[in-house]
Amino acid sequence: MQFSTLQQKFIKVRSNKAFELFVIAVIIVSALLVGAKTYPMSATVDRITLFLDWFISIFFLVEITIRFLAEEKKSHFFKSFWNVFDTLIVTVSLIPIENSEMALIARLVRVFRVLRMVSFIPELRILLVSLVKALPQLGYVMLLMFIIFYIYAAVGSTLFEKINPDLWGDIAISLLTLFRVMTFEDWTDVMYETMEVYSLSWIYYLSFIFFTAFAFLNMVIGIVVNVMEQEHAKVLKEEAEANHEPTIKDLDEKLQAVQAQLAQLLQQKRDN
Amino acid sequence: MQFSTLQQKFIKVRSNKAFELFVIAVIIVSALLVGAKTYPMSATVDRITLFLDWFISIFFLVEITIRFLAEEKKSHFFKSFWNVFDTLIVTVSLIPIENSEMALIARLVRVFRVLRMVSFIPELRILLVSLVKALPQLGYVMLLMFIIFYIYAAVGSTLFEKINPDLWGDIAISLLTLFRVMTFEDWTDVMYETMEVYSLSWIYYLSFIFFTAFAFLNMVIGIVVNVMEQEHAKVLKEEAEANHEPTIKDLDEKLQAVQAQLAQLLQQKRDN
Amino acid sequence: MQFSTLQQKFIKVRSNKAFELFVIAVIIVSALLVGAKTYPMSATVDRITLFLDWFISIFFLVEITIRFLAEEKKSHFFKSFWNVFDTLIVTVSLIPIENSEMALIARLVRVFRVLRMVSFIPELRILLVSLVKALPQLGYVMLLMFIIFYIYAAVGSTLFEKINPDLWGDIAISLLTLFRVMTFEDWTDVMYETMEVYSLSWIYYLSFIFFTAFAFLNMVIGIVVNVMEQEHAKVLKEEAEANHEPTIKDLDEKLQAVQAQLAQLLQQKRDN
Amino acid sequence: MQFSTLQQKFIKVRSNKAFELFVIAVIIVSALLVGAKTYPMSATVDRITLFLDWFISIFFLVEITIRFLAEEKKSHFFKSFWNVFDTLIVTVSLIPIENSEMALIARLVRVFRVLRMVSFIPELRILLVSLVKALPQLGYVMLLMFIIFYIYAAVGSTLFEKINPDLWGDIAISLLTLFRVMTFEDWTDVMYETMEVYSLSWIYYLSFIFFTAFAFLNMVIGIVVNVMEQEHAKVLKEEAEANHEPTIKDLDEKLQAVQAQLAQLLQQKRDN
Repeated sequence: MQFSTLQQKFIKVRSNKAFELFVIAVIIVSALLVGAKTYPMSATVDRITLFLDWFISIFFLVEITIRFLAEEKKSHFFKSFWNVFDTLIVTVSLIPIENSEMALIARLVRVFRVLRMVSFIPELRILLVSLVKALPQLGYVMLLMFIIFYIYAAVGSTLFEKINPDLWGDIAISLLTLFRVMTFEDWTDVMYETMEVYSLSWIYYLSFIFFTAFAFLNMVIGIVVNVMEQEHAKVLKEEAEANHEPTIKDLDEKLQAVQAQLAQLLQQKRDN
Repeated sequence: MQFSTLQQKFIKVRSNKAFELFVIAVIIVSALLVGAKTYPMSATVDRITLFLDWFISIFFLVEITIRFLAEEKKSHFFKSFWNVFDTLIVTVSLIPIENSEMALIARLVRVFRVLRMVSFIPELRILLVSLVKALPQLGYVMLLMFIIFYIYAAVGSTLFEKINPDLWGDIAISLLTLFRVMTFEDWTDVMYETMEVYSLSWIYYLSFIFFTAFAFLNMVIGIVVNVMEQEHAKVLKEEAEANHEPTIKDLDEKLQAVQAQLAQLLQQKRDN
Repeated sequence: MQFSTLQQKFIKVRSNKAFELFVIAVIIVSALLVGAKTYPMSATVDRITLFLDWFISIFFLVEITIRFLAEEKKSHFFKSFWNVFDTLIVTVSLIPIENSEMALIARLVRVFRVLRMVSFIPELRILLVSLVKALPQLGYVMLLMFIIFYIYAAVGSTLFEKINPDLWGDIAISLLTLFRVMTFEDWTDVMYETMEVYSLSWIYYLSFIFFTAFAFLNMVIGIVVNVMEQEHAKVLKEEAEANHEPTIKDLDEKLQAVQAQLAQLLQQKRDN
Repeated sequence: MQFSTLQQKFIKVRSNKAFELFVIAVIIVSALLVGAKTYPMSATVDRITLFLDWFISIFFLVEITIRFLAEEKKSHFFKSFWNVFDTLIVTVSLIPIENSEMALIARLVRVFRVLRMVSFIPELRILLVSLVKALPQLGYVMLLMFIIFYIYAAVGSTLFEKINPDLWGDIAISLLTLFRVMTFEDWTDVMYETMEVYSLSWIYYLSFIFFTAFAFLNMVIGIVVNVMEQEHAKVLKEEAEANHEPTIKDLDEKLQAVQAQLAQLLQQKRDN
């Protein structure tokens, strides 16, 4: 009984508007802190940021504990990706790191606390989920694109390795060089260098640009068409549900009823 | 009474076609003047431009005064964004600046008089308003993109600060560097430099390019879908209004009337 | 009478399939000739190209004459843009140029004979016409974009003139520099240079990139929506015409007839 | 009879799931081998890769033989593009090459074995076929684009040949330079160089960028519209087939029947 009232208190706190705004404020402060630390700081300011860091860590711990205790079924809590995500970020940033070498990693972990902005604002969460959901559609196009990249990288490092090992040394470096060519970043420098040895190597670059650009274009069009169809289906469904608009099927059924009535009338005539 | 006739005169002037064309001509001259001043000029030409400048300033003042006096309810005048915009530009360019240091600012203010082209041509005004109206739709995608930028900038300035402080010195400089990477402008130079220290830092750049490109693509598709839906809804509405075309709902209502009539007929039969 | 039979002969020649193919072959040869001349040539080959050049010029003259004589109403011939275009190119390339300085211009004029490919293949002509027709739709967006460019160029040459006159010397040079920035071509070099004097000048570049990218995006979306609507309207029209499919309007009219018939029936009942 | 049972065995093997997965595994191993060979290897590893190479070659030969023997009508086997493709790659990689000069070509041929991934996974095959099918639609736009490129290249090599023969030496080099300008890769360097001689040559570059960007845009929009229409038609067809949804035509026919019945009723009345 006592615990139940405590839980209700937690639920109240969790859904309190002021509490929500305060959490967002703390997240923003933690983001600003991350940015501030990239500037040189005096010893005093340094001590303040250290204190703030610990305050934020503890506040996040408290906030997650409240959310956990407010959950009616504890087992459901960790079924939500975002709860697991939050817990992970908070617990990792609590690990005390004294070692100076690890200090860099500790700073990096705190950077990811900025991602709590995404987990806390529902609109951003929806956006990210829809972005991730769009990925598998692209699965085969991306596989095809990777095969194109792989073949060109293998050919490139076979032919051009001796010309410039920094760009074509092995297949991993060649893949990076090809990505660079795809972004058109100083790609002519890469081409002119190999053209001095193989004067026809422009075919290699132009065909690569053509294939990847074409595959990329196809990918984009694929997404656009997909999104549009989903939107269209959603709009149609909403219209049908919201307005209780009659469909052609409704008309058809009514016409059949009319025909039945007329048949009945004609039958009666004939019976007379 | 006397004032009322004066106001009617002003309204006549304001809606006079020749007056409108003259205003546009003056705006164009002021734009050309702004361009002309970037070339070296002889003392004579300099004096002419000075005279033209004052003529334009005074003409704009007169034109706005006419528009203000022609307005029936004076309080409505400043409710229009464009009127406030025009008044601001005209009054600011009237402030006499003798100080040589301020001369630069005076020249810059006069440049913005070119924007009166936008405020005067209704089509451009509509275009700009529709551009601005499209922005809030993008709010959350832009926030997400900023969070991505911010996290990468924080990580970048933490890891790469000592490698090249000119590019990764603090979070502001890092944000600028990342924008540069997003535009593919010499991004490999930035990458190769950090890869000498952290050989895996290509993951940082490639994942950043992937995330931002993907978010950007999503944003563009979002706008396209939005615009198309609006266009579609507009077209549907126009069709329905203009042609008084019967809808499926109209057919449904008529069919119900037919059924009622038939039911009446059958009832009469039974009564006989 | 004699002339009439001659004209019929010309019409026959003009619409002769073999003649058409031969004209295309000559156009292709003239295109190859233009390309061949950019390579160093021996004296013999040079004489051959000179001969071929004159043959092509005379052949084109003959071809156009045939088309002109085959035209029933001579006044209609020059009403077609493509006829005027062909005549112009052919006559200009006939002007004998002995002067060595003018030889360059003569060569350039012959290059444009390649454009006869466009005027001769109907599909290319349709494509080009539709491209040109799409331009006026973009009128106001392009005007807005030019105003943005002009204002930024004026501000740029006012502020940055002393930093680098090669890039910001006057408004024309500044416009070119801004176009370069828009294509992201070494734009950071331009920016870093001015940031040394005005450390906040990144605002100038980033806002410019944002405005032009946004306006450009809007332009593209505008075209896409336009093209799609036209396609949609065309498809709807074709469907309606080809299949004589009944429309909702047809159904409505039939239902009204049914209602009238039923009303008549009910009236008769009441009369009985 | 004996052969027939053998063939049935082959068919069983061909459609065996474990066999399919094993083939994919071998293809992936052959791809990894291609990549591994771009790294320096010790003599032992070298011998292992040599052995693996031969194993893969023989396995592919066996696999294709099984597929060929499993085919009921042998003449149908080579009608499939993918069978011919597989056979070609496998047989070519079987040719023993001792000559050290040819070793490079042997390695390149083995790279193309990675393409067997495409021929083996049906989804990738469909994707590639749809990509290739989309090409002819673009035929005329690409021809138009090539004509634009050709004319600009001819003009460029005529005017700028003496300024920089490396970029404008003949029409082939000029075409490559123009492709570089279209990708915005250091295009201002190319332009500034020619502007020193012909100060108006910016018109050449800007008009070229404008034309190609516009034609490219048009091409993309053309594909988008095409794909969307096909999708739309497919969706409509599927809907009509799957749900047996009544169409407006069905309604129209039923209404005609109703009218006929009513006419009959009215006739009967009159007869009474």
